[in-house]
Amino acid sequence: MNIPSKMRAAVLHAFKDVRVEERKVPSPGSGEVLVRVEACGICGTDIKIITHGMPSQPSFGDFIIGHEYAGTIVALGETVDEFEVGDRIAVEIHKGCGRCRNCIMGNYTACLNYGNHAKGHRANGFTANGGFAEYAVNHVNTLTKLPDNISFDESTMVTTAGSSMYALDMAGGYIAGDTIAIIGPGPIGLMALQAAKTLGADTVILTGTRTERLELGRKLGADHVINAKTENCVEKVLELTHGQGVDLVLEAAGSENSLQQAIEMVRKGGKISIAAFYKKPVTADISMAVRNGVNLYTIRGEGRLNVPRAMSLMGQGKIAGQPLITHTFPLEKINDALATYVERRDGAMKVVVHPQLA
Amino acid sequence: MNIPSKMRAAVLHAFKDVRVEERKVPSPGSGEVLVRVEACGICGTDIKIITHGMPSQPSFGDFIIGHEYAGTIVALGETVDEFEVGDRIAVEIHKGCGRCRNCIMGNYTACLNYGNHAKGHRANGFTANGGFAEYAVNHVNTLTKLPDNISFDESTMVTTAGSSMYALDMAGGYIAGDTIAIIGPGPIGLMALQAAKTLGADTVILTGTRTERLELGRKLGADHVINAKTENCVEKVLELTHGQGVDLVLEAAGSENSLQQAIEMVRKGGKISIAAFYKKPVTADISMAVRNGVNLYTIRGEGRLNVPRAMSLMGQGKIAGQPLITHTFPLEKINDALATYVERRDGAMKVVVHPQLA
Amino acid sequence: MNIPSKMRAAVLHAFKDVRVEERKVPSPGSGEVLVRVEACGICGTDIKIITHGMPSQPSFGDFIIGHEYAGTIVALGETVDEFEVGDRIAVEIHKGCGRCRNCIMGNYTACLNYGNHAKGHRANGFTANGGFAEYAVNHVNTLTKLPDNISFDESTMVTTAGSSMYALDMAGGYIAGDTIAIIGPGPIGLMALQAAKTLGADTVILTGTRTERLELGRKLGADHVINAKTENCVEKVLELTHGQGVDLVLEAAGSENSLQQAIEMVRKGGKISIAAFYKKPVTADISMAVRNGVNLYTIRGEGRLNVPRAMSLMGQGKIAGQPLITHTFPLEKINDALATYVERRDGAMKVVVHPQLA
Amino acid sequence: MNIPSKMRAAVLHAFKDVRVEERKVPSPGSGEVLVRVEACGICGTDIKIITHGMPSQPSFGDFIIGHEYAGTIVALGETVDEFEVGDRIAVEIHKGCGRCRNCIMGNYTACLNYGNHAKGHRANGFTANGGFAEYAVNHVNTLTKLPDNISFDESTMVTTAGSSMYALDMAGGYIAGDTIAIIGPGPIGLMALQAAKTLGADTVILTGTRTERLELGRKLGADHVINAKTENCVEKVLELTHGQGVDLVLEAAGSENSLQQAIEMVRKGGKISIAAFYKKPVTADISMAVRNGVNLYTIRGEGRLNVPRAMSLMGQGKIAGQPLITHTFPLEKINDALATYVERRDGAMKVVVHPQLA
Repeated sequence: MNIPSKMRAAVLHAFKDVRVEERKVPSPGSGEVLVRVEACGICGTDIKIITHGMPSQPSFGDFIIGHEYAGTIVALGETVDEFEVGDRIAVEIHKGCGRCRNCIMGNYTACLNYGNHAKGHRANGFTANGGFAEYAVNHVNTLTKLPDNISFDESTMVTTAGSSMYALDMAGGYIAGDTIAIIGPGPIGLMALQAAKTLGADTVILTGTRTERLELGRKLGADHVINAKTENCVEKVLELTHGQGVDLVLEAAGSENSLQQAIEMVRKGGKISIAAFYKKPVTADISMAVRNGVNLYTIRGEGRLNVPRAMSLMGQGKIAGQPLITHTFPLEKINDALATYVERRDGAMKVVVHPQLA
Repeated sequence: MNIPSKMRAAVLHAFKDVRVEERKVPSPGSGEVLVRVEACGICGTDIKIITHGMPSQPSFGDFIIGHEYAGTIVALGETVDEFEVGDRIAVEIHKGCGRCRNCIMGNYTACLNYGNHAKGHRANGFTANGGFAEYAVNHVNTLTKLPDNISFDESTMVTTAGSSMYALDMAGGYIAGDTIAIIGPGPIGLMALQAAKTLGADTVILTGTRTERLELGRKLGADHVINAKTENCVEKVLELTHGQGVDLVLEAAGSENSLQQAIEMVRKGGKISIAAFYKKPVTADISMAVRNGVNLYTIRGEGRLNVPRAMSLMGQGKIAGQPLITHTFPLEKINDALATYVERRDGAMKVVVHPQLA
Repeated sequence: MNIPSKMRAAVLHAFKDVRVEERKVPSPGSGEVLVRVEACGICGTDIKIITHGMPSQPSFGDFIIGHEYAGTIVALGETVDEFEVGDRIAVEIHKGCGRCRNCIMGNYTACLNYGNHAKGHRANGFTANGGFAEYAVNHVNTLTKLPDNISFDESTMVTTAGSSMYALDMAGGYIAGDTIAIIGPGPIGLMALQAAKTLGADTVILTGTRTERLELGRKLGADHVINAKTENCVEKVLELTHGQGVDLVLEAAGSENSLQQAIEMVRKGGKISIAAFYKKPVTADISMAVRNGVNLYTIRGEGRLNVPRAMSLMGQGKIAGQPLITHTFPLEKINDALATYVERRDGAMKVVVHPQLA
Repeated sequence: MNIPSKMRAAVLHAFKDVRVEERKVPSPGSGEVLVRVEACGICGTDIKIITHGMPSQPSFGDFIIGHEYAGTIVALGETVDEFEVGDRIAVEIHKGCGRCRNCIMGNYTACLNYGNHAKGHRANGFTANGGFAEYAVNHVNTLTKLPDNISFDESTMVTTAGSSMYALDMAGGYIAGDTIAIIGPGPIGLMALQAAKTLGADTVILTGTRTERLELGRKLGADHVINAKTENCVEKVLELTHGQGVDLVLEAAGSENSLQQAIEMVRKGGKISIAAFYKKPVTADISMAVRNGVNLYTIRGEGRLNVPRAMSLMGQGKIAGQPLITHTFPLEKINDALATYVERRDGAMKVVVHPQLA
């Protein structure tokens, strides 16, 4: 394939200063490939990176942001035979160092050498350059092939889907016939909802505060939606479960009282899986969880190959990313894209950038 | 409800001597209900019971056989508030003693007091009276409510479905995106196939020797079917998996070489789940399993509440029992029903008896 | 054996009103035994029961308290063949109903029919009569035989030991070579410490505020003890673990900041097991746990047969209850015993009552 | 440290042709260290390699054998900061590729790129040069530091110990209070015995055919030893377990009937862990395992960081390698060492070679 030496890329120059500039097209190292990026979604953590910074992020002026991307492999680094030039792929974020205790044990998203490039760790768009660019380098560990029926846009949701599935996986994974409450109808919650339904949950209850997103949840398969602004979520969940509570709560809201709600919604011996960050320390009745023998699982992002699992479900037509994508922009308009996302202009939920479009 | 004092029931009088006779309608004890049986399927183990006997089975002349049944609750024993008169239910086989190590730990189908009625164990149609009768007594632990859209006939397949799901559960349960081979397109294999597909398996390969059943498997969702009479199953599975083998083999054939095939079909680090009995000791290259780090899980029937899980999937329309049911008979014709099943008359697969029909 | 018809028992007549009175010796039902109680320890929950009450406790005037007891079997109820008259046993608290979802799945200490005698649930000394009496009735599920070398006094610690082991079990159970921090050198913490050391933990760090108990911890095998009054526990733990944190924190303090400490002490991908109740809602940086992929397990008491596991370790001489027992009293002096415990007179830690002594 | 450019090493020139020759001292690559080897044990697989060959082994004339070794780090490759020059370490065999599905999930001993050096896999002494040499290169993933109180000789047993512990780990790992049978008093069995005892097993029964090894087992802590030549192992185990069978069988014999014995020795719902290779296909009553709900776990060697776990137990004085070491030889006499091992001269069990001795 004809690979240019220069490319356009969105570079972080200072907090809140993203500029689309010319950069050298990078070369894949051993075990890596070069990806021609076709689509890259905007995630809440991109905004954190841009406005406040995250640990181990590259220097201003050097850092190409973006981590939810997909494209076509255009060059292979040494030793790569798992993929071929021309393969359509999406990426997950984390490539572990492969040599710390956590990576050796398969917990690569909790790598103890986070941010240490020399030792092999790489978090695309976090500690290494990412996908708001025409080209990006990726290690094979982070790649998943796209089924033919999955578009690049749709596949930008696969890390979100994989993260929500990792939250189910952590809590046991086998949910056929279970009753599940999901708090928070954001991208994680809505992908979790679809995953839970297709993986056999008997009943999925979605709670949240924004009517539009709850309505989307209903369309995507929620058996019940509860608007926390107008109803008491806990009471309603208990009512729907004959007073017992649900088997599993997936807490994807990260609001002030959402963990407390989770604890009150779950049955004795049930489970809570947390896929959310809180703005400040949380106050909750942990004794109630203890008294009820409820374990709390946590996930910080994708993990344990749940991204390829999610891609399989997408390919099977069982979960969909497209319904969450509300806007697309060419790369040159990334600042419009970011503003649309942050300000939730026109009900923006997922905003996707197309690096190959000017 | 109007409950008669007498009922018709199929009683085992000697090996191969099943007679439909009048019996007293039994009374439910504490924690039990009386079920008006509407449908009871014939299972391979019924034939073993009838022809050779099984451990702890009741005496000839007293033993009402049948364990795959469903009906309506017509009376409640003391303390029962989990169900109401009028509830439509299906049953699973095993009620553990609740006091041996295995039952206390939740492994009730491996009860160490198997056959000990005094201590509370009861296996319907095995060690206690079963469902080829107008009425049967059941402990609440064995009952699962029927969703409105599930017929009694369909629900007679729920223990088979629950057993196949227990086989998946034992092997980890979380199979989204996995590639699975199922050996043996009998009732267990065909229900496992449906369960595996709906629980998110990427690809399910079904192997067997009978064309009709393989065809049914294809209709029920198998991505690939392999006829072991005309193709080399192992080679074909390896070909379909780029030489690596599948993530999980569900061995539901119990034939002379099926375990060996399972060992050769599974990838390094994969799993085998055995839901089959072999006619005699099996010879297999266990060293190959050891070398490849492959664990072998086993199940003897249903367990760990997989029957209610299966019922939920049935109610959701995700797995179906009806396509496997080829024949129905009234209770008085049970010997015809048994012969039809044993001789596989007219391609008989699942044969259901209706105790309320004369 | 010669069983009298009357016995002395400590009865709760009102909050803070415990009287030793004459009562009828109870009769064991099916699956139960009559125990001649030789020793019964005082636990913190006894004080809660006496001062504020707990859910489903029997009426004032009827309720014999006490749940950490041991004695000799003097009569067998129907169907009991697991034990013989003369067997020396200790008891655990919870006998599940055996018919709710949690009990069927082996989670009997989270029984959904808690307090429902008719359905078979019984929590000795909580929802049913207990062991501050000359005789007590117990279901076989709650009994564990004493090895010959274990005294009745020592064995009153076995439920505490079993609870601390359940906390390890919940978090995976296999801790050989791990580094563990235990917060809180009370009975749970000190038994956990012994269990962790004997089950192969490489290093156990004990933190707390009371010098005497920390010193006892050191004698019982703690590799490091940290006095939270004079040292910064988190900093010290991080220092001892080269900045990484421990593999597992067992939080057995239930103080205002102990959960926060646990979150800060544990390594990325590590685990926290909570065996403590908090006086009020807890405030903690849950986001830090999420970011680090740390799961939080909880236990409310003993469970999953960890009491017999603990008894085995006691019999092997690997964990000891005796060092925690500071005082003993005859039954008639139970109010002195309770006061000694509550006021921590003479450094009281574990106080044991002897029902057979006047 | 002063590192020579040449070293002595045992090179495989043809089957059964091992020669000690001069070779270049190798250089550690990125993530690797150079080890001055002090001791290297002979394992059964060394003999297979020498006499028949194993998959992916280096060419005759180039291949330095030996995989159970320990020594001192004398040089660090790039990026290594986990260890320092002067650290005393022992090695495990497998360094996974870090990029196949199994390695990413933490199952590095089932690496799908076994033998593929370019992709980063390395099995010391199997697919890469090993430790019968004065110096060897090792990846940091395979290194475990020696506690001060552990000699190089003793530590050559740590991979054996780690393998036996991995067999326990696979079967759940938490064995406090359990009853365990170990079939085969070879090195794996004897290390498993010690590990099982120290990890809290209530009772460990050792069976085998060689009196001397059974006697050693008794000294190392076996509660019961059964000589299969003079006693019926299965009957005896059932007798010792009141007819129920043991909770776990560790099958470390690999003989013709040992798997059958395991199936007959284990209780319903119990587990079998296989750490043995069989000379040919095994015939066993798998139906009995199915009927009893018994799972069979397998391990092919060490895994999941059980080698560092084993090293911790060694350092704590809880398991010992020294009692199994019967002979030592200098490197130049490696052929005598091999013959001593193969012919079991003077009751040889574990034979250790000292590469630094002439």
